[in-house]
Amino acid sequence: MTTSSPVGLPGLPARVEVYEVGPRDGLQNEKAVVPVEVKAEFVQRLLAAGLTTVELTSFVPARWVPQLADAEELLALLGDLPGRHPVLVPTEKGLARALEAGVREIAVFASATETFAQKNLNRTVAASLDMFEPVVRRARDEGLAVRGYVSMCFGDPWEGEVPLTQVADVAVRLHEMGCTEVSLGDTIGVGTPGQVKALVELLPSRGLPVGALAVHFHDTYGQALANTLVALQCGVSTVDASAGGLGGCPYAGSATGNLATEDLVWQLHGLGIETGVDLASLVRTSTWMAEQLGRPSPSRTVAALAG
Amino acid sequence: MTTSSPVGLPGLPARVEVYEVGPRDGLQNEKAVVPVEVKAEFVQRLLAAGLTTVELTSFVPARWVPQLADAEELLALLGDLPGRHPVLVPTEKGLARALEAGVREIAVFASATETFAQKNLNRTVAASLDMFEPVVRRARDEGLAVRGYVSMCFGDPWEGEVPLTQVADVAVRLHEMGCTEVSLGDTIGVGTPGQVKALVELLPSRGLPVGALAVHFHDTYGQALANTLVALQCGVSTVDASAGGLGGCPYAGSATGNLATEDLVWQLHGLGIETGVDLASLVRTSTWMAEQLGRPSPSRTVAALAG
Repeated sequence: MTTSSPVGLPGLPARVEVYEVGPRDGLQNEKAVVPVEVKAEFVQRLLAAGLTTVELTSFVPARWVPQLADAEELLALLGDLPGRHPVLVPTEKGLARALEAGVREIAVFASATETFAQKNLNRTVAASLDMFEPVVRRARDEGLAVRGYVSMCFGDPWEGEVPLTQVADVAVRLHEMGCTEVSLGDTIGVGTPGQVKALVELLPSRGLPVGALAVHFHDTYGQALANTLVALQCGVSTVDASAGGLGGCPYAGSATGNLATEDLVWQLHGLGIETGVDLASLVRTSTWMAEQLGRPSPSRTVAALAG
Repeated sequence: MTTSSPVGLPGLPARVEVYEVGPRDGLQNEKAVVPVEVKAEFVQRLLAAGLTTVELTSFVPARWVPQLADAEELLALLGDLPGRHPVLVPTEKGLARALEAGVREIAVFASATETFAQKNLNRTVAASLDMFEPVVRRARDEGLAVRGYVSMCFGDPWEGEVPLTQVADVAVRLHEMGCTEVSLGDTIGVGTPGQVKALVELLPSRGLPVGALAVHFHDTYGQALANTLVALQCGVSTVDASAGGLGGCPYAGSATGNLATEDLVWQLHGLGIETGVDLASLVRTSTWMAEQLGRPSPSRTVAALAG
């Protein structure tokens, strides 16, 4: 059964760009290494379901993320694709590999907190931004779009609540160094709508326009869609999600992580917002991927519709 | 880890009454019949966790709902309790039993759609309202408060989307016959925030004030908390939820049903809204209850915090 809303809410965009992170953020956090042919089929199915923006993989040293060590092979298998297909690139070496593979958009992954910067990147927040700066500059010089992620925006498992100004400093720095889009990530899913509104409204006053923002919520505490709604009402129109709810944060202490693309699309379509996504096709894709991984999808909507 | 929001959203209430439905709506939909001593301990633990409004059971014929056939025994075990403790009562016979047991508040359960009225009550919507009318009148004459549930407010598995005016007709009739509170239920969880806003804003124009409304969302498609947020912004301040996400609708085609009280409380406390609930104590209660039932809680927050 599907439903469509006869009415909307004020201040919502007519269309939302769903930024699909499943193949990268999802599969990177799976214990199993998925065969490259399965990854390629996953991406092709996501595109066939109407997603136009799919983050494909990471160009990181294989010892950091063995799950994504096949980046070149995956891109070669996929060939030319329509739409936006960023890859995560932490270093200049990774950028060189990505350029060689024909990538047209990259993403860098920063942290708003010192503890997570140390754990994830083995350096301070400032040092990690210094590491990204030449990567972003060269990518822009090569004509690439660059997304900057800010992780741990609303809370950190070690530091607790994160001051908004600390998050804003990192987001603004990424924008100033040349990032064309900045994605605000609630990596452990603790944030609630008041915090989202405060952060999204603070950034334009610091020179980072709302049109350059994306939001990346986790459903660890079930808050992702309420947070999304508020972000949309504040003018954000790019929302990250992971097909079937794949992946998450290994530090979040829960099986649930990324907002499921299906749950997001159910909300957006219910609100009368266009996404271009065929929900039934997406549910079939996530059900198929869950079979490949040997465990059920944590997406509420997949569970409800796949039966 | 807990987090508190330094900021709120406009239009939110300072305090929300969490209307706990786990012992009735939750356990009624469990396959296993829970021993009455376990039910009593469940209720006592919920009260100890700070919940002040707990729907206890149903006074229905045992052949309808064998899971709740021990209503008299449960109330006798519990004795006098502080706060609001409604019981579900469909008929005059049930009301007589409830009065005999010392109940001070009842609830009647109506449907917004004909198909569900037939399946759940074996009569038309109009005939079920006619059945409730003398029950509500007598209960009010006896000085009891009466809650009226409207189920299938935003969608029905057989009829699809439900016209708002059809829902409003049932809600207004319940209020006019004497219900002191009307709970708007999204029994299969398909609704999205635009529909919620439209319905909650329509009812006051039909003579049913927002202060007499409660909302009852299901998380079948992950939409419950976004819907809750919008309802709060429209002036609703009573929200139904089920500890640990117990129960749901057997027709919804999914394992997930009722909004979990823990997920709701996480949102409310994050927004700076008082509930009186001690979340850690509630999570321990739901974890204990999940052990009694032999399956994990579907609540995101319980999964994140219980580990």
